[in-house]
Amino acid sequence: MKKLNIAIIGLGNIGSYLYKYLNDNKEILTKKNNCIPFIKYISARNRRKKRNIKIKKNQWLDNYLDATKIKDVDLIIELIGGSEGPAKKLVFQALQNKKHVVTANKALIAKYGDQLAIIAEKNRVNLEFEASVCGGVPIIRSLKESLIANKISKIYGIFNGTSNYILSAMDKKNKNLQEVLLVAKKLGYAETNPSADLNGSDVMAKLKILSSLCFNSFLSKNIYVEGIKEIDTTDIRNANKLGYKIKLLGFAELLDNNIYQRVHPTLIKKDSYVAGIDGVLNAVIVDGKPIGQSIIQGEGAGPAATTSALVSDISSILRGNIKFPFSVPSGERKKFKFNTIDERLFSAYLRFEVIDKPGVLSNITKIFSKNKVSIKRLVQNPNINKKISSIIIITHKSKNKFLNKILKDISKKSFIKKKPKLIRIDDN
Amino acid sequence: MKKLNIAIIGLGNIGSYLYKYLNDNKEILTKKNNCIPFIKYISARNRRKKRNIKIKKNQWLDNYLDATKIKDVDLIIELIGGSEGPAKKLVFQALQNKKHVVTANKALIAKYGDQLAIIAEKNRVNLEFEASVCGGVPIIRSLKESLIANKISKIYGIFNGTSNYILSAMDKKNKNLQEVLLVAKKLGYAETNPSADLNGSDVMAKLKILSSLCFNSFLSKNIYVEGIKEIDTTDIRNANKLGYKIKLLGFAELLDNNIYQRVHPTLIKKDSYVAGIDGVLNAVIVDGKPIGQSIIQGEGAGPAATTSALVSDISSILRGNIKFPFSVPSGERKKFKFNTIDERLFSAYLRFEVIDKPGVLSNITKIFSKNKVSIKRLVQNPNINKKISSIIIITHKSKNKFLNKILKDISKKSFIKKKPKLIRIDDN
Repeated sequence: MKKLNIAIIGLGNIGSYLYKYLNDNKEILTKKNNCIPFIKYISARNRRKKRNIKIKKNQWLDNYLDATKIKDVDLIIELIGGSEGPAKKLVFQALQNKKHVVTANKALIAKYGDQLAIIAEKNRVNLEFEASVCGGVPIIRSLKESLIANKISKIYGIFNGTSNYILSAMDKKNKNLQEVLLVAKKLGYAETNPSADLNGSDVMAKLKILSSLCFNSFLSKNIYVEGIKEIDTTDIRNANKLGYKIKLLGFAELLDNNIYQRVHPTLIKKDSYVAGIDGVLNAVIVDGKPIGQSIIQGEGAGPAATTSALVSDISSILRGNIKFPFSVPSGERKKFKFNTIDERLFSAYLRFEVIDKPGVLSNITKIFSKNKVSIKRLVQNPNINKKISSIIIITHKSKNKFLNKILKDISKKSFIKKKPKLIRIDDN
Repeated sequence: MKKLNIAIIGLGNIGSYLYKYLNDNKEILTKKNNCIPFIKYISARNRRKKRNIKIKKNQWLDNYLDATKIKDVDLIIELIGGSEGPAKKLVFQALQNKKHVVTANKALIAKYGDQLAIIAEKNRVNLEFEASVCGGVPIIRSLKESLIANKISKIYGIFNGTSNYILSAMDKKNKNLQEVLLVAKKLGYAETNPSADLNGSDVMAKLKILSSLCFNSFLSKNIYVEGIKEIDTTDIRNANKLGYKIKLLGFAELLDNNIYQRVHPTLIKKDSYVAGIDGVLNAVIVDGKPIGQSIIQGEGAGPAATTSALVSDISSILRGNIKFPFSVPSGERKKFKFNTIDERLFSAYLRFEVIDKPGVLSNITKIFSKNKVSIKRLVQNPNINKKISSIIIITHKSKNKFLNKILKDISKKSFIKKKPKLIRIDDN
């Protein structure tokens, strides 16, 4: 029986879970893949740290980089994390020394994936990163293998469970973001420092990876990113009344040989599939030809779902299923133009909190008309006690730059009492 | 560059679409898989039939079985259809002669898959059948590769687009099955003879295949199957009032080392994911450990979606991704007991059309209590004009055999004016 010698580097929640899983399921994985997954070495920052697993003495490497040099290591599993430092060193050296690499590190792949792919291809080893995007949703393997026949025009969805949990809970419990975030932290759905989840940068890294797999392009640096920090319960209530939910969505589209990538809170029709995805779930929607629309949904994160993804990558290597990291050889990846969303058309929800006095409404609508944005719907809710009105406007499809211009122009007006809001609508 | 010589046998809608697709996309598939998919031979029943494709003279085989004998054929794509006759002959002989096989033939795999797998494994060739189950939903590759780490306890979903279209349209348009079926035929959603779609046997074949992949068991013969022919608009309206939709679902479950497989119309909560899947779409839900719940949704049938599935199988073979047809070697497939659903617990919807006279209700409820089935909800709708009442009962969870016994006992009563209905409820 063939054998694949594995080194696991990094023993946090995920590394420990994977180590235990591979030990418990060695037999069935061997049967399915006709090759033994043998954990030859392990390394992590602190050997003496208390962990829930038993490590044999001869398995431990004091210097994690030794795994890249030892001859009888075939596959290195990088579970250190971070786009720089030890993780970067490990993965570059591993591929240079002709070791297969499996990683859950989205930051590393989103930043250095293009360079790493070139090395992997030159040395004919696999670089697999299913676990880096939406843990329990096998979207990378689907794009690279199951949907290989398809010319993909659009990928979008919910790529971050934490922010989706927060928006769902704000909606259902009518609580503000800070209150809900506290609960999320208690439940383990949000990290101590949740900024990457809230400011959209987690989704951005995932979208970069997915987009390049969909369009056979390189990783892009030109992504519009807006997080959920400024969404408040008033917006969620307003959206509800208008027949929408607010979701943090990532979108990558190929339109006339231009790639548009964007991450932002989005108003999406209540009866749409995506609006129904609540809590920490992730969902990915792919539009392709000839397949039409394809959807995958599952748990987005956590050691269990991530281990499922890691093991699918490990099994692929056990079976000798050699693939290009980004579907096609690096020399064949396309040089599409990555466009800003300035010229892209959106209908949008805008909210202005204004002093309740004559002339304000005409002042606002004049700015819309000056910027050639036509209004589809306008609702004014007066609050007499505070002498403040809330003006909600839904626009027809208009260029993003004009919507932004309106926001900027109106922000400066003296009758504005609060920073105005702009949330794009997805009404496809 | 490596090359794989392919023979396509069968040139109906799907065969023609695939042939055209492979010609148009040869270059990109070669780049992605590092191997050329070369269509060496083609065969079909009638050479002179008008088709929308150009076939070179030296590609045509007069005898389709020659493809299994010619030395320079590596892969045979079987698109003849049917579990017996030419398709069976072709696939058995192909595998015996060490050719890889890709097929879209669910009837053949559901019936002879176990035997065929043994031959494929002995000869170390691939037998791939992604296109045989839910065309555009890559569920087979997901089970065998993406979800390989998981111990699956349940798979269920909508596996037949035709019946799902019919039930959705009956609901939305308040029309009966025959009316809706006529429209479905006009739209190309139902075949001239739609019996396999309506009587559940199409779902049965798919469920057999999926179940054996999920549980690493052999193909079962013990499946409870009930189609949608007896569902009428009254049931759909009643279900709506009670907060349910009616869907034709297939279920395979592993409970205490027993496998239960069943196909039947099911009342499912309106706000559940499955209830929202309308029209010809397919959706598959998998419960597994460690992944949790995973969902895949897409177009179920048609030449385009089926070609996407076929090409994913062909690409896997191009990359040399050798796998066991049913995930594990045949010698390792488990001999679980396939149980009937007699002892399985269901809550159910029952409808009785009765003569409106004293004593009927007490007579009915007595039969329930005699069979130890407790009633959760009872609605009696009198129709005074016809002197007939409609009694709808929702039960608590009860053994299937007792529910059937009630149906049988009450059917015989003289106050019954129409064959009673029993529809199982999925309230998980």
